[in-house]
Amino acid sequence: MNSYDKYLSPLGRNLHESVLRKMGQVTASRTGDLISFAAGYPDPVGFPWDEFREIANELLSGKDGSVLQYGPTRGYRPLLESIIGVLDGRGIKTDLTEVMTTSGSQQGLDLIARVLIAPGDAVLVEVPTYTGAIAAFRNAQCRLVGVPQDADGINIDELDAACVRERGAGARINLLYLVPNFQNPAGILLSLDKRARLLEWAEQRDMLIVEDDPYGEIYFDDVASAGETRPLKADDRRGRVIYLSTFSKTLAPGFRVAWVAAPAPIVERFDTAKQSMDLMCGILDQRVVHQSIVRGVLERQAAPLRQLYRMRRDVMEEALREQLGGRLTWIAPKGGFFLWAKLPDGYQCEPLLARALEQGVLFVIGSAFCVDGSGHDRIRMSFSWPSPEGIREGSRRLALAMQPELAQR
Amino acid sequence: MNSYDKYLSPLGRNLHESVLRKMGQVTASRTGDLISFAAGYPDPVGFPWDEFREIANELLSGKDGSVLQYGPTRGYRPLLESIIGVLDGRGIKTDLTEVMTTSGSQQGLDLIARVLIAPGDAVLVEVPTYTGAIAAFRNAQCRLVGVPQDADGINIDELDAACVRERGAGARINLLYLVPNFQNPAGILLSLDKRARLLEWAEQRDMLIVEDDPYGEIYFDDVASAGETRPLKADDRRGRVIYLSTFSKTLAPGFRVAWVAAPAPIVERFDTAKQSMDLMCGILDQRVVHQSIVRGVLERQAAPLRQLYRMRRDVMEEALREQLGGRLTWIAPKGGFFLWAKLPDGYQCEPLLARALEQGVLFVIGSAFCVDGSGHDRIRMSFSWPSPEGIREGSRRLALAMQPELAQR
Repeated sequence: MNSYDKYLSPLGRNLHESVLRKMGQVTASRTGDLISFAAGYPDPVGFPWDEFREIANELLSGKDGSVLQYGPTRGYRPLLESIIGVLDGRGIKTDLTEVMTTSGSQQGLDLIARVLIAPGDAVLVEVPTYTGAIAAFRNAQCRLVGVPQDADGINIDELDAACVRERGAGARINLLYLVPNFQNPAGILLSLDKRARLLEWAEQRDMLIVEDDPYGEIYFDDVASAGETRPLKADDRRGRVIYLSTFSKTLAPGFRVAWVAAPAPIVERFDTAKQSMDLMCGILDQRVVHQSIVRGVLERQAAPLRQLYRMRRDVMEEALREQLGGRLTWIAPKGGFFLWAKLPDGYQCEPLLARALEQGVLFVIGSAFCVDGSGHDRIRMSFSWPSPEGIREGSRRLALAMQPELAQR
Repeated sequence: MNSYDKYLSPLGRNLHESVLRKMGQVTASRTGDLISFAAGYPDPVGFPWDEFREIANELLSGKDGSVLQYGPTRGYRPLLESIIGVLDGRGIKTDLTEVMTTSGSQQGLDLIARVLIAPGDAVLVEVPTYTGAIAAFRNAQCRLVGVPQDADGINIDELDAACVRERGAGARINLLYLVPNFQNPAGILLSLDKRARLLEWAEQRDMLIVEDDPYGEIYFDDVASAGETRPLKADDRRGRVIYLSTFSKTLAPGFRVAWVAAPAPIVERFDTAKQSMDLMCGILDQRVVHQSIVRGVLERQAAPLRQLYRMRRDVMEEALREQLGGRLTWIAPKGGFFLWAKLPDGYQCEPLLARALEQGVLFVIGSAFCVDGSGHDRIRMSFSWPSPEGIREGSRRLALAMQPELAQR
């Protein structure tokens, strides 16, 4: 048989690809010295290898068979207790009924998509927003409604107008998806004032807020402080926030250990859904992460990681200024992994990407993050993974890629 | 807020729980010396701890940053190549376009549910069948149609009749789900003759077969041979079989590394779907499994595991005969982890479970495996996890649990 189309479900026919994953395939299939500003990978030099090795060594002694056994869907209980402690450090009070582990935050997004989004729903997202959320939500066959951002985060007037407009048109609309800390891709930090107003707004409009917080720990202390990253969830007195976070950026992404903190009835549903999705997260991974928290490894990671990525940001900003003068502009990232750049007038990200690939440098096209058809004049560049030399060389290549079109004008 | 029901999707409102997972929670929450014949867990004494520790130690040296990095959704490529080798050993020829890793076979079932099952579809399953498949498929909002089994596997006349009847009634019906080797829960080995006939039947009726094969390596060589476990997929010339298998029983379940082998266009869809579900399987887990294959650990596991579980089966059969005489009957398991027992006339599994729990022994009620409302006179007992002493003591307790009702008769 050649075609299996007739066997597919409606979802199987209309699956949305993650643009980032697709670009990962480009990177993987290219040989030679491609420099990638595309992937939002942490730098493995920042992983606590010695500690992980020591922990794994102890766990795999064979003394405790449960280290490699099946375990509860909700998560390894001592890890859940440690996560409650991590949340407490962020100002969020939870108990065991309100947290569960997920196989990466992507699974948290998928759980939200399956349990809370009905086909035909409208879901509010920022423009731009994270592609993994776009793919997961679209696979629930909803319609994504984009809301613009200001320099201090989502525009609340526009947000409210969109919500009212959608409801007026008869749409079921219950969810707002946000990345408040060092947003992927825009790098924006949502102001504390807007966080408070968003909680009020959610109550007023009877909305739930999905708060995705992978980067909160990675603030750059020359321009941001821990206090400014305080999650909305910390002040969520009405149970309106579903909070996602992960160990992928602070420990290592290879473990696939992330978590959700949400009202107990929602976590209960997520747990049931996960049972038929993958039974549980990898238990060795959970145990390594748990020990990393208990032994203080996670806590010791934070300051050096902030230093590492702040330096990378400095290198990228400097290199881009040097290579591209004022032609490329961006909002200075206060944390996280990304620089969201605006191309000069007349430039489009798609043809530029083709030329950049010829020069051996990769970025993500801005349109991939924008559900309203915009973003063609933007690119996302990650400074987290390439070395300082790589960042400088990649910026030089990007400048070369921008030459021909400049010449044409 | 107290209730979040109004925010739920139709799926969120109608999630199907895995009965086995629920029983796992019972076990976990009970203190004391409960003996569980419920969980289909492998025995950790059979895990190759020393080899895992050595492999993890080397992988976590820090020399290769990709060990804990993000990786491709399809799977770590050297592992995929090793899996192709494992499949070759089972008579199945595949290439890299036809295999992918999944987070346990449960994720394979979920991928099938999402990509191939439309709401309202009918799906054919054996009676009894695996509860994890029941939950995953039902969450795709399909209708499960049960087909009875003979001692040598599914009854093909009844199968065909069910298919024709469903189509005649206008149902969309494309899938048959089977566990041909040492079926969970019935322990039945599907005959080679029926395997050949099923492939012909699938072609004739334009059906796809989902072949779930976690236990093929665990045959008991006093009553079965490797040749008898030859997968349907090995003779699938028309691309009609989606084959699932796992390292959970042969290496360890805690790694969550399983795989699908299927026609390339289907694997392509699964890959896209998995991108928005969890990005990828744990990469350290994949690397450990890969090294376990490369170093011959997996191969060396097989014979001792067959011995281990054959002995456990012997202990359980002997203990049950001793404790319960001819009152409990069962088809002798030729492999796998389970004994599917028929209760004496007048017994029902649900009240028996309550009494068994009082006595400190746990099993799974037969009705959980039967989509046609039958199975109330059956129980599934796993001999894989409890120690020989545990099996004997558990059988004694089961006999005690069966006394009061006997007395009432």
